[in-house]
Amino acid sequence: MAVADQAREYARQHAAEFQEQLYTLLRIPSVSTDPQHKQDMLRAAEWLAAEMRRVGLDKAEVLPTGGHPVVYGEWLGAGENATTVLIYGHYDVQPAEMADGWSSDPFEPEERDGFIYARGSSDDKGQAFIHIKALESYLQTTGKAPVNVKLLIEGEEEIGSENLTNFIQANTERLKADVCVISDSGMPAIDQPSIVYALRGLSYMEIHVRGSKQDLHSGGYGGIVHNPALALAQIISKFHNPDNSIAVPGFYDDVLPLSDEERAELLKNDIRETTLREITGVTQSWGEEGYTLRERQSARPTLEVNGLYSGFTGEGAKTVLPAKAMAKISCRLVANQKPERIYELVRDYVAQITPPTVTSEVRLLNQGDPAIVDIHAPEMQAAVAAYERGWGIKPIFMREGGSIPVVADFRRELGVPVLLMGFGLSADGAHGPDEHFSVEMFRRGIQTAICFLEEAGR
Amino acid sequence: MAVADQAREYARQHAAEFQEQLYTLLRIPSVSTDPQHKQDMLRAAEWLAAEMRRVGLDKAEVLPTGGHPVVYGEWLGAGENATTVLIYGHYDVQPAEMADGWSSDPFEPEERDGFIYARGSSDDKGQAFIHIKALESYLQTTGKAPVNVKLLIEGEEEIGSENLTNFIQANTERLKADVCVISDSGMPAIDQPSIVYALRGLSYMEIHVRGSKQDLHSGGYGGIVHNPALALAQIISKFHNPDNSIAVPGFYDDVLPLSDEERAELLKNDIRETTLREITGVTQSWGEEGYTLRERQSARPTLEVNGLYSGFTGEGAKTVLPAKAMAKISCRLVANQKPERIYELVRDYVAQITPPTVTSEVRLLNQGDPAIVDIHAPEMQAAVAAYERGWGIKPIFMREGGSIPVVADFRRELGVPVLLMGFGLSADGAHGPDEHFSVEMFRRGIQTAICFLEEAGR
Repeated sequence: MAVADQAREYARQHAAEFQEQLYTLLRIPSVSTDPQHKQDMLRAAEWLAAEMRRVGLDKAEVLPTGGHPVVYGEWLGAGENATTVLIYGHYDVQPAEMADGWSSDPFEPEERDGFIYARGSSDDKGQAFIHIKALESYLQTTGKAPVNVKLLIEGEEEIGSENLTNFIQANTERLKADVCVISDSGMPAIDQPSIVYALRGLSYMEIHVRGSKQDLHSGGYGGIVHNPALALAQIISKFHNPDNSIAVPGFYDDVLPLSDEERAELLKNDIRETTLREITGVTQSWGEEGYTLRERQSARPTLEVNGLYSGFTGEGAKTVLPAKAMAKISCRLVANQKPERIYELVRDYVAQITPPTVTSEVRLLNQGDPAIVDIHAPEMQAAVAAYERGWGIKPIFMREGGSIPVVADFRRELGVPVLLMGFGLSADGAHGPDEHFSVEMFRRGIQTAICFLEEAGR
Repeated sequence: MAVADQAREYARQHAAEFQEQLYTLLRIPSVSTDPQHKQDMLRAAEWLAAEMRRVGLDKAEVLPTGGHPVVYGEWLGAGENATTVLIYGHYDVQPAEMADGWSSDPFEPEERDGFIYARGSSDDKGQAFIHIKALESYLQTTGKAPVNVKLLIEGEEEIGSENLTNFIQANTERLKADVCVISDSGMPAIDQPSIVYALRGLSYMEIHVRGSKQDLHSGGYGGIVHNPALALAQIISKFHNPDNSIAVPGFYDDVLPLSDEERAELLKNDIRETTLREITGVTQSWGEEGYTLRERQSARPTLEVNGLYSGFTGEGAKTVLPAKAMAKISCRLVANQKPERIYELVRDYVAQITPPTVTSEVRLLNQGDPAIVDIHAPEMQAAVAAYERGWGIKPIFMREGGSIPVVADFRRELGVPVLLMGFGLSADGAHGPDEHFSVEMFRRGIQTAICFLEEAGR
């Protein structure tokens, strides 16, 4: 009989209860980017700490940072000589409003067709909660886990984890561990478990273009001053080459080229054109020539427009000639690109292509390093074994297109190997309306997390 | 002693009172484009009708249309054989909020340095009010005006005067006149009175670009689907040629070329580069090569971006890959361009340049014909004489860059010559924040309007 058996049975028996508990957390609109939700952020953190104490952790507390607090809990009953696993997740979520196209209240979870619909259900409350429930399953049955466990759930992942580096640096002793697990990523399909070995980094910027000192009448001034919205569009149109590669000089200089072995590995799990169309509703795929869809989505850097704003955008017609125009843009980066360097390159390029008839400014909003994890490390093999037990089949390795800046932080500050054990699905709609999380994934995730604690302790 | 002398003296004596009365009208936020201001629209109309009755018009009433009502008043005491002057203005205004950059409440008029600051002060409440005060100055002194006067003040000019054509068609007998006067335009400087002989038309459109069926995570999908905000920028960047002329095929086909005589006339009143920079704050002028600033601003068609919207535009960083992007664009047109035809050309061009990776749609929001008025007509000469008496110097002829679609309507439906007697200043900031109206202009305008009624009756 395996060490994990009793815990696994407990988790199966309490599945419905676990889901209800997750709902309570999902109901708290912990939107980190919006100052109006400051109290909700605190509420979510306090709830998590109380839940950790309730299920049997030695200690769980809400710790202040320069921004939103982190929740830290630990169970160290396995003893000083046992392995220690540090688990990272985040309780903050992206903004969400019915007007964005939600079918139900984003902060009132609803199960439909086997999926839990709510903001943060997949990214990342549901995934973080899996580990609390795995630990509960040990502590409420055998009374102890096979390894020491430290849980660090932060509140600023969606806004760049600005204060986390400082927190880690100030708490290196407290956070000391043998391995770090992050569950904040997705797999393409529930039938094929996968482990992410690389993440993209991020450089998020705002471009501001200014013309006149105030909005003008388009009749009185149209034709003699350069419209900043037009100028912004003209600038943005110069970011890509005809083959959809990025035209910013020096942009690819630091990119680690894909090896043939990696390309072969990624090909095993390529994105199918028909699947992409079905999931997203786009007429056809787009992207950099010479690369597969999976490569474009995870192993190649990008430059996206995240937002555009200028002039009059309400109902009806206002014949204004705007004084300014703004774009939010972000570059997804791959190893070994440096976010700060990319910002400088974009900034210099925009300055170079801005016509003398307007002025422009590029501001860096936040950034995160790209990351690659060694797939041959023993900790990674423990994860492979855990997935195999949780799913019944071997996981495959893949890259993730998204960014988890904290991965680089953990490696650098704690000198610890970082495993990405994602329990999301690519089609969960993270960051968009109708974000959802598979109930089956939630259950298998808990089984896998339970097994991982055993495998990590071997 | 001229017929107008007593009226002119009355106007001088009551100048302060007239200004206070105008303030009452300016305090009503009659924003026609916003359904929330429907009651304010009605309030402004009722106030104007009451004011017309108070100053001695035979009759003044608020008449329904398919949208916001019109105010109609008349004094026909000059008799059946006398000349009848129809005066047009509008009581609706553009939207205005402190957040747009106003220095004081846009709906609480304030006099600073000889200017009245308020939304609608120049465009068009102040200008329309001038004619009511001119008429009052006759009726409250000699008891009669030199000509019959009909006043038509509409409430939908800022949203395309959609219901006015129907109203004019249904009231051709009531509106029958010998000449129509419109005061809804500006002159470059108060020291050089000018009469506008041409107006630009308008084709106002929305472009919608769609990619995925809902917003996506830019990490998960960045690089494999065409970002609609990027695609929109790419589309907009193709609207202009390198010489800043418009690249839409067929766009200039119907443009009546400027005659050498016209170009010489416009050159007398060209826009100075330094003046433009000073007024607007732009670093330098922009526009179509081969034309002077005045020509670009009034005698050449344009394509402006009035608004841009896509994705996340709030504070902070949201790594969204938007599902859609929208631009409001408008073309200022010159004789003999047709707004509907221009819409079709833009629509077809956008369809042609939209890449197969996204879909697009172009909607026509509203439109207005361009207009040219004969500068040699006797009615125009009456206006010239009136300005000369009001100012002490001869006015010059010029073109206006803005649009007053109703000019074409009056010509077509009533078969009446239309005079543009504008009392605004180009620098009044119509449609922008801190719109203002010169107190001196308000006074000279009333003097000129009084003289015009005498000149028109000769």
